[in-house]
Amino acid sequence: MNWLKVIGLGPGAEGQRTPEATQALAEATDIIGYGPYVARVPEHPGQRRHATDNRQELERARHALALAAEGARVAVVSSGDAGVFAMASAVFEALEHGPPAWRALDIAVLPGLSAMFAAAARLGAPLGHDFCAISLSDNLKPWPLVEQRLAAAAGAGFVVALYNPISKARPWQLGRAFALLRAILPGGVPVAFATAISRPEERLVLTTLAEAVPEQADMRTLVLIGTAESRLVPRGEGARPWLYAPRSARRA
Amino acid sequence: MNWLKVIGLGPGAEGQRTPEATQALAEATDIIGYGPYVARVPEHPGQRRHATDNRQELERARHALALAAEGARVAVVSSGDAGVFAMASAVFEALEHGPPAWRALDIAVLPGLSAMFAAAARLGAPLGHDFCAISLSDNLKPWPLVEQRLAAAAGAGFVVALYNPISKARPWQLGRAFALLRAILPGGVPVAFATAISRPEERLVLTTLAEAVPEQADMRTLVLIGTAESRLVPRGEGARPWLYAPRSARRA
Repeated sequence: MNWLKVIGLGPGAEGQRTPEATQALAEATDIIGYGPYVARVPEHPGQRRHATDNRQELERARHALALAAEGARVAVVSSGDAGVFAMASAVFEALEHGPPAWRALDIAVLPGLSAMFAAAARLGAPLGHDFCAISLSDNLKPWPLVEQRLAAAAGAGFVVALYNPISKARPWQLGRAFALLRAILPGGVPVAFATAISRPEERLVLTTLAEAVPEQADMRTLVLIGTAESRLVPRGEGARPWLYAPRSARRA
Repeated sequence: MNWLKVIGLGPGAEGQRTPEATQALAEATDIIGYGPYVARVPEHPGQRRHATDNRQELERARHALALAAEGARVAVVSSGDAGVFAMASAVFEALEHGPPAWRALDIAVLPGLSAMFAAAARLGAPLGHDFCAISLSDNLKPWPLVEQRLAAAAGAGFVVALYNPISKARPWQLGRAFALLRAILPGGVPVAFATAISRPEERLVLTTLAEAVPEQADMRTLVLIGTAESRLVPRGEGARPWLYAPRSARRA
């Protein structure tokens, strides 16, 4: 039987990939995705691997649907969760605008552990109350909309997780976001830079909004902005304090 | 070696629980959590199981820390992700206000698949762009703050995931939330009720904001509110259409 599964690989560590994802990856005839993510999938004999460039999401989605329509068992892989700024939306967009026959395909999305939650777990419980996720990329939406969402989220007391904070093609957006947030939130609000969580090159930096600089982030970094209610709990010698959001909020 | 691990069990299915969580559950001497979640943990001989009532989060966290301090290997379990409206924040709150010696304990949070992403995957890719999560419970925060956050999120075009939408003690909040959202968003905006995702009693209802009624939700339901940009892709005979958020946004 042919199928298409859009699979979230989790942040990187095998221990954080779901068993259902691992099983589907083993049963697939074709693995499709951005090169570094395809490289993370365990190799199986006879399986075809299609590693493509980062920017070609829609083209990759069409390719995957066409392969499934021809009889393949296709795994489209994303890092983290496939539904969070990743391939799932591109697949449904390609499905909506593709040949009607594609709609009869056996399609499923297998959720994965998002970078946001993997990073939060390392830090403590920074998302412990209402939170939001915003992509800082203005490739697919106008920058004023990003600013509007940042202001709305910070103004209403959400913890904010910033995806796609910076890249060579988008060097100034994160600095602009910090400047905007400093006009709304106290300078002491905790900011965390979580890079390549659960992978060998994992790096965590905990600082404040007043002192946060864009240079602490790269393409693999998730940036978490706390709130005025965020708490730090000191630990022993040299250890990073725990960061958490209290369950109760007083402000209205 | 004694330790305390705060573990997200995922939404329910074993195939959606991470291998690292499964391993920690097998190594623990004590499992602590809300009764129905403890019941979901595979039994291991000699392990002590402490199933408690829903409301006693802080007391349960203190109990867990005290057991770990006495030498136990303690697994505090939550459904979904432990950091999302669950036990991780309570553990750090208890740690902050407990005996200083607790701070030297070996503590870790093991992230899990959140209900939000498991529900989204079943529906398609409804969270495909910026989104937020709001708990509708006003046990720990004032209701006007909930309303402020709903208005800010909907007004800025976030997809909204509502946790804790309704309970016997909180019967009116979800209806009030729908009324507030109808004043901001078009009536045709998709609304999904996702109940007990990945468990035998799973139930999914897809409707619109104009037609959504609180009776479609219970304590186990996650309610997803789309945006004016959400898209539906029809499928074959009798199948629920796919719901997704396009990757690009035009509005500013």
